[in-house]
Amino acid sequence: MSRIVALDTDDIRFATSVSLDGSDAMNPDPDYSAAYVRIRTDDDASGHGFVFTIGRGNDVQVAAIRSLAPYLVGQEVEPLLDDMGTTWRRLVHDSQLRWLGPEKGVMHMAIGAAVNALWDLKAKRAGLPLWQLLSSMTPEDIVDLVDFRYLTDALTPQDALDILRRAAPGREARTAQLLADGYPAYTTTPGWLGYDDAKLARLCKEAVDEGFRQIKLKVGGDRSEDLRRLEIARSVVGPDIAIAVDANQRWEIQEAIDWMKDLAAYDIAWVEEPTNPDDVLGHATIARGVAPIPVATGEHMANRVMAKQFLQADALQVLQIDATRVAGVNENIANLLLAARFGVRVCPHAGGVGLCEAVQHLSMFDFVAVSGTTDGRMIEYVDHLHEHFVTPVVIRAGCYEAPRAAGAGAEMLATSIEAHRYATDV
Amino acid sequence: MSRIVALDTDDIRFATSVSLDGSDAMNPDPDYSAAYVRIRTDDDASGHGFVFTIGRGNDVQVAAIRSLAPYLVGQEVEPLLDDMGTTWRRLVHDSQLRWLGPEKGVMHMAIGAAVNALWDLKAKRAGLPLWQLLSSMTPEDIVDLVDFRYLTDALTPQDALDILRRAAPGREARTAQLLADGYPAYTTTPGWLGYDDAKLARLCKEAVDEGFRQIKLKVGGDRSEDLRRLEIARSVVGPDIAIAVDANQRWEIQEAIDWMKDLAAYDIAWVEEPTNPDDVLGHATIARGVAPIPVATGEHMANRVMAKQFLQADALQVLQIDATRVAGVNENIANLLLAARFGVRVCPHAGGVGLCEAVQHLSMFDFVAVSGTTDGRMIEYVDHLHEHFVTPVVIRAGCYEAPRAAGAGAEMLATSIEAHRYATDV
Repeated sequence: MSRIVALDTDDIRFATSVSLDGSDAMNPDPDYSAAYVRIRTDDDASGHGFVFTIGRGNDVQVAAIRSLAPYLVGQEVEPLLDDMGTTWRRLVHDSQLRWLGPEKGVMHMAIGAAVNALWDLKAKRAGLPLWQLLSSMTPEDIVDLVDFRYLTDALTPQDALDILRRAAPGREARTAQLLADGYPAYTTTPGWLGYDDAKLARLCKEAVDEGFRQIKLKVGGDRSEDLRRLEIARSVVGPDIAIAVDANQRWEIQEAIDWMKDLAAYDIAWVEEPTNPDDVLGHATIARGVAPIPVATGEHMANRVMAKQFLQADALQVLQIDATRVAGVNENIANLLLAARFGVRVCPHAGGVGLCEAVQHLSMFDFVAVSGTTDGRMIEYVDHLHEHFVTPVVIRAGCYEAPRAAGAGAEMLATSIEAHRYATDV
Repeated sequence: MSRIVALDTDDIRFATSVSLDGSDAMNPDPDYSAAYVRIRTDDDASGHGFVFTIGRGNDVQVAAIRSLAPYLVGQEVEPLLDDMGTTWRRLVHDSQLRWLGPEKGVMHMAIGAAVNALWDLKAKRAGLPLWQLLSSMTPEDIVDLVDFRYLTDALTPQDALDILRRAAPGREARTAQLLADGYPAYTTTPGWLGYDDAKLARLCKEAVDEGFRQIKLKVGGDRSEDLRRLEIARSVVGPDIAIAVDANQRWEIQEAIDWMKDLAAYDIAWVEEPTNPDDVLGHATIARGVAPIPVATGEHMANRVMAKQFLQADALQVLQIDATRVAGVNENIANLLLAARFGVRVCPHAGGVGLCEAVQHLSMFDFVAVSGTTDGRMIEYVDHLHEHFVTPVVIRAGCYEAPRAAGAGAEMLATSIEAHRYATDV
């Protein structure tokens, strides 16, 4: 029997705004940051998690994570990890903390970081990468991880069980396939708004050479600029590489439809975050207006209740789960099950700090145990900041290699934490 | 010319869980709290604001407010207050902070507290209560306070201008009417789940004696208990007093419809928060299922984009704005304009700590300058914790008296702040 003895936090920031990596129409000058947490036990084990932010306010996110210490420190590890469904509910449905969302924003993401750190600890204790740990659970045990409250008009526990049981027979073969070939990726590396034309063209070329089958360009700042940059990108990558565009919430509803009419000439793979991420009805209108171009969103989707509605309303055709936006692994399993129920493909949001390392486990679990397919599915990839992680992602021939190391992927190097700890006197 | 010299914060908590004041089906043991902010200027003036929470996590909310100090301290006061629309946008659309919501949860509410404190300062400098300050602005200046981004598919600046201009002629008469008669209130004092039958009956009787025309009961814990308590309440208040019920997000969609079929026998004025506050589509289904009983929600509505959708989808018939859930006065003006545009009545959420003191200004402004009516409209009232405010609300014959004191109503007594400051070593 072991016990949690500490919940350590760190405010980690990278000065990415200097190089304009990550610049888009809504986020002109991000400083990629992590509100980082390490949960330590008295047998010298630790689980690591974080919330990705883009700079200012990372200290607030850290404070929110730190406020969870009384819920965890002093607890016995085994009961927490053996019943992660109950552990999740205890944090998310805390009768007082809940008011601060409910189930959205800083407090919800803080719970996600703690939950993910516990999953990291659980996977390390099991000696398995998270995706394999999850994929080794029975359908019944996976269903127990999910909170179906507010979902039952779209997904019942029985629906979830049916989905998981249907996928059970092929688990072994798909695991082998993942270990051999990896999971498809696409790259956003070329597409940031702050890059000049030469850099755009060079990075597009490199992306194709490296084996990626899809790239993504940021749009929404200036329409003629978007057309010009798409012209460059399309001419470099040729007709066979998919090009998605990402407006980062820049548009009104009709504006999105009009703008995309112009961009459609470049054979657009999807339009991402056309408007405010809370606007289910607006996205539904846009989806009808830009069809057959699919609408993609999710990186700012606050919780599973929003995911449910986007799916019910046909407001998205690509669900972009994010590893640190919702309350961790459990809620993302709910989102994967919802997507499977509605037959919608999942192409996770990644990049930032550690998002690739974290979210790949969820896509691989989805392939092995939930949807059973990678058709039309890709994990976003950005070639950035991976060197700060203990087990950085490995991309080969445009695919994520399946991680072999035990854990959930979120652990940063102690030297990187030291070097990028942000000094704040707030 | 004066300058902001400090942004002081306090973590203020009341041990309300001891008496079960405020107990409902989702919040069994709240400790009513305020994340309090005071913005001080070098000419010794100050503006006060707060976020209402129910206990744990109030320190996180305080940290979020404190993180706004660099945006305000050192700034000249006049430019900030003269163009509150720009001031609002500068905070809400900060390119890095925005990631923490966007526009929802702890960070958004923190901005609301700061914005409301600035409005308090502005009203005090003008020597007017906030409702009169707002009601004295031209339609054009009011429109400038509102951010129409993401709203234009439902409400354009021109729509808003039309609404405000239509209401302009009667402003003076309605101001006089408010000063004479006040604004209708209803009371939730009798209805908390934690009270026994005798206390319920006694408080129902007192509510009628005090002139309230509507009471509200918490429901959703146990159906037969709800029926029993409604029987008591209805028998005490008689057929002419309206009884609303509040489920505090307790139900699934079909469950809400079924449950309300049983309760409908007691002539229910509205059903409040039947399910998750993010579930626009769910509320729309419930609204169709329980009609003609109106659906009311809003106290957990994260922002104006959610309000827009609830109105577009006919998902609510009563909009319950909250003074501290969204980004302050400006965003609540957007919500009032949206409600006016859709012809939906606004009955604010209040109670808690200081919510009555704050939100009354918005309803009174709505009556004078926006909707021009109090038909079917009431502000919630709970007889609780008002003694801690410098200008506590005054209820007379079931109505809020129109405040005469300059300011926005949020200022707490220094002695109360001292007495209820929460000691935390986080």
